[in-house]
Amino acid sequence: MAGLEGHIVKVKSWDVRFPTSQEAHGSDAMHGLVDYSCVYVQIFLESCHLIGCGLTFTCGRGNEIVKHCVDSLKPKLLGQKLSDILGAFGEFAHSLANDNQMRWLGPECGVLYLASCAILNAIWDLWAKVEKKPVWLLLCEMSAQKLVNCGIWKHLTDVMTPQQALELLQNVASDPEEVNKRISHVKENGLQSYTTACGWLGYTDDYMSSKIKSFMEDGWDSFKIKVGVNIEDDIRRCKMVRDLIGEKGRLMIDCNQKWEVNEAIEWVSQLAPYGLYWTEEPTHPSDVIGHKKIRDGLRHLGVKVATGEVCSNRVMFKQLCSEGAIDICQIDCARVLSINELIPILLICKKYNITVCPHAGGVGLCEMVQHVAAFNYVRVAPETNPDNPVLVEHAEHLAQHFEIELDCTGAAYRLPTGEGVGYSTTMKDESLVKYSVSMSE
Amino acid sequence: MAGLEGHIVKVKSWDVRFPTSQEAHGSDAMHGLVDYSCVYVQIFLESCHLIGCGLTFTCGRGNEIVKHCVDSLKPKLLGQKLSDILGAFGEFAHSLANDNQMRWLGPECGVLYLASCAILNAIWDLWAKVEKKPVWLLLCEMSAQKLVNCGIWKHLTDVMTPQQALELLQNVASDPEEVNKRISHVKENGLQSYTTACGWLGYTDDYMSSKIKSFMEDGWDSFKIKVGVNIEDDIRRCKMVRDLIGEKGRLMIDCNQKWEVNEAIEWVSQLAPYGLYWTEEPTHPSDVIGHKKIRDGLRHLGVKVATGEVCSNRVMFKQLCSEGAIDICQIDCARVLSINELIPILLICKKYNITVCPHAGGVGLCEMVQHVAAFNYVRVAPETNPDNPVLVEHAEHLAQHFEIELDCTGAAYRLPTGEGVGYSTTMKDESLVKYSVSMSE
Repeated sequence: MAGLEGHIVKVKSWDVRFPTSQEAHGSDAMHGLVDYSCVYVQIFLESCHLIGCGLTFTCGRGNEIVKHCVDSLKPKLLGQKLSDILGAFGEFAHSLANDNQMRWLGPECGVLYLASCAILNAIWDLWAKVEKKPVWLLLCEMSAQKLVNCGIWKHLTDVMTPQQALELLQNVASDPEEVNKRISHVKENGLQSYTTACGWLGYTDDYMSSKIKSFMEDGWDSFKIKVGVNIEDDIRRCKMVRDLIGEKGRLMIDCNQKWEVNEAIEWVSQLAPYGLYWTEEPTHPSDVIGHKKIRDGLRHLGVKVATGEVCSNRVMFKQLCSEGAIDICQIDCARVLSINELIPILLICKKYNITVCPHAGGVGLCEMVQHVAAFNYVRVAPETNPDNPVLVEHAEHLAQHFEIELDCTGAAYRLPTGEGVGYSTTMKDESLVKYSVSMSE
Repeated sequence: MAGLEGHIVKVKSWDVRFPTSQEAHGSDAMHGLVDYSCVYVQIFLESCHLIGCGLTFTCGRGNEIVKHCVDSLKPKLLGQKLSDILGAFGEFAHSLANDNQMRWLGPECGVLYLASCAILNAIWDLWAKVEKKPVWLLLCEMSAQKLVNCGIWKHLTDVMTPQQALELLQNVASDPEEVNKRISHVKENGLQSYTTACGWLGYTDDYMSSKIKSFMEDGWDSFKIKVGVNIEDDIRRCKMVRDLIGEKGRLMIDCNQKWEVNEAIEWVSQLAPYGLYWTEEPTHPSDVIGHKKIRDGLRHLGVKVATGEVCSNRVMFKQLCSEGAIDICQIDCARVLSINELIPILLICKKYNITVCPHAGGVGLCEMVQHVAAFNYVRVAPETNPDNPVLVEHAEHLAQHFEIELDCTGAAYRLPTGEGVGYSTTMKDESLVKYSVSMSE
C-alpha cells in the first residue's frame, strides 16, 4: 500500500485547551475545576495526503510540558519509514519511551509516557487510514501473530510471555466464523455504556437530577457520580440517584484517589446501602496492596473495586490483576503506550478474569476507547459475565470538535465505519485554530 | 531570623549538561552512554543575600523538559514568604506536585516529581543557609513534631500515621545526650561508603581492575559493578573483582532494571558463587510483587535485594517495605519530593527493619545524600545490623563543580560543616556558565 512505504516528513504538535472549568464539567474530589486539554499530534508522510492524528489528554495547566516532550521526541520519528515502524511496532513503541537517556524522566510513567502515547496514537490513526479501516476493525481482523508483534511484553513474562499471548489470541479466534459473528454483533448492537456526565462534584442536586432523568430517557441505566469530599453530601446524592434510577439501575462512585486505604473501606461502607456496583480509584493509583485491602474489606458488601485510568504502565496492571486487587480494570487510551501497551493489559485481564470497563471522557477518550473495547470483545474476551457486565464509560462534552461523529444512541457506542475514520481522533480545523494556544512543527 | 520573613522574588532555572558519555562513566545495561545532567534551581529572597540552590539529576536528553516543568511551577513560589512555606512545609511540598490541574501529569511520578524535587531541594538549602547550619544538622536538631510537619503522610496511614511517626521519632530521641553522642560520632567517623565508580559497563577489565586497586588503597572494601548484558562477561567480571577484593570485600551487582522476574533469579543464581551482598534493581521499578518473588527466589543463596533509586513515590516504598519485597532501600535525593517525602520513607523502613543504603552518583547526589544518611543514623535508625551494614553509595565524577567540597577520605563521607553549606548543592559560577545550555528567570 502506497502510504506504508512513505517516510515521515513532518510532525506538528498542538497545545489545545478547552475552558471546561467555567461549567464545572470534570470536577471531582481531587481535581476541583479543570480545563480539559490535549496535546494533539499530526504526522505527515511524504507523497501521501493522509495525516495521522493522535492525542493525549490533560487537565489544563501542564499541557505545555507534555507538548515540549512531544517536541523532544520528534527526532525519533522524522525520516522513518511507516512500514519499518509497523514491522516491529511493539519494539518501536517501547523504545520511544525508553530512549537510553530520556527514560530516566519516567521510567515508564508521567509526562514521557503521555507524550509518547500521543505520538503512538497518531501512528495507529495513520495506519488505519492507510488501510482504509477504522482502528477497531484493523485490530479485529489482524492476525494473532501481528497483534503480538504490536504488543509490549517486556517485564511481563512472569505472568504472560509473547508465546502465551499468541496462544490465547489464537484460541479466542480459532473459529473465523465466530469472529465474524462477533464483528457483526458489535456493528449491530454497539457497546453498552454508562455515563459520568451526570455526577460531577460541582453540579447541584437539581442539575444532577435533571441530567439523570434526561439520560434515562435516552436509554441509560448505569450512572457514576463523584464522591469523597463530604460524607453527608455523598449519602444524600447516592440516595437521590438510587431513588431516581430505581432498584435495577447501576450506581457507581468515584473519589478520584482521595481516600486513605482504611478510610476508603469506612466511607464506602456508609454508601453501600444505596447499592453500589463499584467504587472507583478509592486510593492512590500506585497502591496495589492498598487496593487489595480495600477489595477484601468491601467484598461482603458486594461493592467491586475498579481502577486504571491513571495507572502508570503494564507492570502496575500486571500486579493489580495477578494480586486480585481489582474487580474491574479501567484502561485508558491516552496514558500508557497506546494500543501497543493495551494489548498485553487486555490479555492479562482476560487471564485473571478481570472485566475491562474502559475509562473515557476528557478530550478524545470516548472517541478512541470504543475502538479498543470493540477489539477486546471480538478478539480477547467475548464471554460476558452477567455479574460483571462490560460497560464503557461515556462522558461526552467535547465531541463536537472531532471530524468523526461520536454516536451513543440508545446508551450504546455505535462504532464508526468508513475509510477515513482511523482512530476517530481527527480534530476539526476550526476547533484547532480556535482552542490551540501554541503549535510547533 | 531575617531571611525567614523574606518573600521569594526570583527563581532561576538552568539546564546543565556534562558530557560524561565521552568517558563511559554511568554506562549500564539499560542506559548505555549517558550525559550526566541536572536542572538547577536558584531561589532568591527579597532583601537577603542568601540563594537557595537545588537540583534534580537526569541522564541528558530530556533535561530540557524537566526545566520547562520547573518554569511552569514558578508561579507557586513567587511572592511566597519563606516562613509560610516552612510553617506547613509538608503540605506545601505535597501541593507543589498536586496542583489540581497539573497532577494529571503524574500522578506523583516522572517529570512533575523531578521538577518539584529540584525546587524543594532549593528550599531546604535556603532554610539551612538561613539557619546557618548544614541540612544534616538542621534535621538532626529539629524537634520530632517539626519533622512530622515537614513530612508528607497522605496515602500512608494504613502503615504509618503522623502520630505513629511522631512517637517513633520521640522514642529514638528520648535521651538528648544520646542524640548528641550520635552527632559527635557521625562528625568524627563519617558515614561508611561503597563505590560504584569502578564498575561501569563501558569500562574494560583492565581499567576496572586498576580502579578497584586504587580504591582499595584509599580504604574502600565494598564495590558495586554493573551487569546484565552478557552472562559470560558478568561471570568473568564478578570473578575478577572477587579475586581482587578477597573474601572479606563486599561485592554488589546492578543490572538497572533489565531483567524479567524469573530471568533475574536465574541470572543472579549464576553469579552468586562469587559472593554477592546484594542485587540492585533486578527488574522493573514498579514491580513490588516481582521484587518479592526475586527476594524469595534468592534468599537461599544469601543474596539480598535492593532497589529505590527510581522508585516513584512514598506509596511504592510503602509497599516494597510492607510486603517484604526488599532487604535494602536505596533512597534517592532527587526523585521523590525531597526530604519532605524521604522522612516518611525512612520511618517506614525503620518500622519494617529495612536497611537504608542511599543511592548516589550522577550530579549532586553524593552531595545531598550524606545529609539524609546522617539524619537517618542520628534520628531514625541508629542501631546497626551487622548483617546489613549501612553503606552510602559513592561515585564521585563531578564533585569539582560544587562550592562545598565532597570529602570521602578513608572511604567514609566526612560531613560538611559551616554556615554556608546548606544542602551542599551550590554550584560554582564558572561551572554553571560553562555547562549550562539554557537559563530562565
